[in-house]
Amino acid sequence: MSDLPNRIFIKEEGPREGFQIERGDIPTADKIALIDALAQTGLKHIQTVSFVNPKRVPGMADAEAVVAGITPVEGVHYTGLWLNKQGFERAMATGKLYMDGKLTLYASEAFLKRNQNRTGDEQLKAQPDLLRSYQHAGVPVRTGFVTAAFGCNFEGDIPPARVVDLVRQMCAIARDNGEELTLIGLADTMAWATPERVKQVVGQVRDANPDVAISLHLHDTRGLGLANAYAGLQMGVTHFDAAVAGLGGCPFAKHAGAAGNICTEDLVQMCEEMGIDTGIDLERLIDCSLMAERIVRHPLPGKVKAGGSLRALRAKLAHAGHEGQG
Amino acid sequence: MSDLPNRIFIKEEGPREGFQIERGDIPTADKIALIDALAQTGLKHIQTVSFVNPKRVPGMADAEAVVAGITPVEGVHYTGLWLNKQGFERAMATGKLYMDGKLTLYASEAFLKRNQNRTGDEQLKAQPDLLRSYQHAGVPVRTGFVTAAFGCNFEGDIPPARVVDLVRQMCAIARDNGEELTLIGLADTMAWATPERVKQVVGQVRDANPDVAISLHLHDTRGLGLANAYAGLQMGVTHFDAAVAGLGGCPFAKHAGAAGNICTEDLVQMCEEMGIDTGIDLERLIDCSLMAERIVRHPLPGKVKAGGSLRALRAKLAHAGHEGQG
Repeated sequence: MSDLPNRIFIKEEGPREGFQIERGDIPTADKIALIDALAQTGLKHIQTVSFVNPKRVPGMADAEAVVAGITPVEGVHYTGLWLNKQGFERAMATGKLYMDGKLTLYASEAFLKRNQNRTGDEQLKAQPDLLRSYQHAGVPVRTGFVTAAFGCNFEGDIPPARVVDLVRQMCAIARDNGEELTLIGLADTMAWATPERVKQVVGQVRDANPDVAISLHLHDTRGLGLANAYAGLQMGVTHFDAAVAGLGGCPFAKHAGAAGNICTEDLVQMCEEMGIDTGIDLERLIDCSLMAERIVRHPLPGKVKAGGSLRALRAKLAHAGHEGQG
Repeated sequence: MSDLPNRIFIKEEGPREGFQIERGDIPTADKIALIDALAQTGLKHIQTVSFVNPKRVPGMADAEAVVAGITPVEGVHYTGLWLNKQGFERAMATGKLYMDGKLTLYASEAFLKRNQNRTGDEQLKAQPDLLRSYQHAGVPVRTGFVTAAFGCNFEGDIPPARVVDLVRQMCAIARDNGEELTLIGLADTMAWATPERVKQVVGQVRDANPDVAISLHLHDTRGLGLANAYAGLQMGVTHFDAAVAGLGGCPFAKHAGAAGNICTEDLVQMCEEMGIDTGIDLERLIDCSLMAERIVRHPLPGKVKAGGSLRALRAKLAHAGHEGQG
């Protein structure tokens, strides 16, 4: 009855997205405990920390200590985020992270200017050097990432053709240097996507790059996160970024820019209920979500952690039925 | 690129769904002020109150006073909810409400038993008498409503064929009594729907009743409200119930955590951004949403009221661009 994929892959972004914006100090031990619990849910890819300027992002000053404290689970890729050479070297130096070199272009020049103080041309020209520095360090480059691919608070709507062009440029840079991109990440950085826009952009990128997997990084600022994810599934998207409990957003705060990522357990519940395998134990993930809420000490936006999973409800009903018969 | 409808019709349920479950006393004047503000947004159908036992639902004890206080706007249908003859007579007696007689069957016998202390047979047998009492009172019967059409916390999954059968029975009762149902309401009373399930149930009901409009009453307990609405739009659904700011929840269903209807302004924003006309002024509606939050004195789940509408962002950017050129 539909072309939904049979299996999707979720990259958990909660520890990184969430803890870097929290105001209060989150104890390093709590960050480690959440990451270790997430690694027991079936998640195979957990982004743990950002290696950024501690003066700019004080919540990530303990990045090295967090990574050092993780008890690695076999088969789980622990990753970090970096925005420059310094950050990359810090990530490498941990010796514990799965290093995934990626190229990044911005669909919004206005946002690039604000975020990185660069022009689009400067960002483009920096990519081959970046790629070669990854090659030099023995880090494979498989991912091309488009920031603000669906719209921008500082520039407005983004034409899908521009996104297709940026992807083309990244694929060419990779190929010119003997690499092949296998994953294209499309980020709705400022929550401008709608389901129809997702279909349009993903459709055009997919048509131009039929052999490349597409990943969606969606924010729920305007409540369309899961509707957009569903539109992505309908277009055959198999990779999603998500944050446990919706960490990184606060349900009640005013968000000028980005609010939280889509909530991992809400995405898992939607997929599992539609017969799409995620490889994740939903009940364990809900436990992690409740743990995240205890750690940050304020309500987090995920819904299933409060409403309960349908699977748990079914199990309870089956048990009650059995008791009734017994 | 899609078969989405050009126009949808939203029935605002916030005042009724919301205020009946609030714990603190909501002043009657505040309820009236919200309803009057909602009537200025372009909404054409506002459900204002429930005529239920004030001992069971104390928040609705002032139903008559609320209706009496409304300043009617031409073209707006103000409605009320009732569950029995007494409630119907109270609604009629106001002389101010748009009276829409509807038949109601429950897809879950377990929920019907808990909610109305009736069996499915008893509920079915009560419908012709109900219909005739509407006819006797001069109230047209145009709507058939299926409660718990997608699943039930007390019974589990609901086979779509059962929903189709209930709709068939209601259409037959209407026809046998010289009426024709023109709208079928499918309620996801306890938030069991997923987008694929919505497509399945709506598809089967539509195939069996090609000339009848379908309305979706969706709850957001598990975060799938707007994804389910999008699935409905893809199936040509043109009528949606929604609650401003996400006010409310059903007092009779077992909901852990917050569990309101889908949020009106989030639905409006999604539709307008996809080129679907709602007839509603989104910015005015957001003002109503903020008003609702002030009235209940606690955060409400709607997202756009915090994240801002894309339309407002675009207007701001256009203004800034104009200033820059000037």
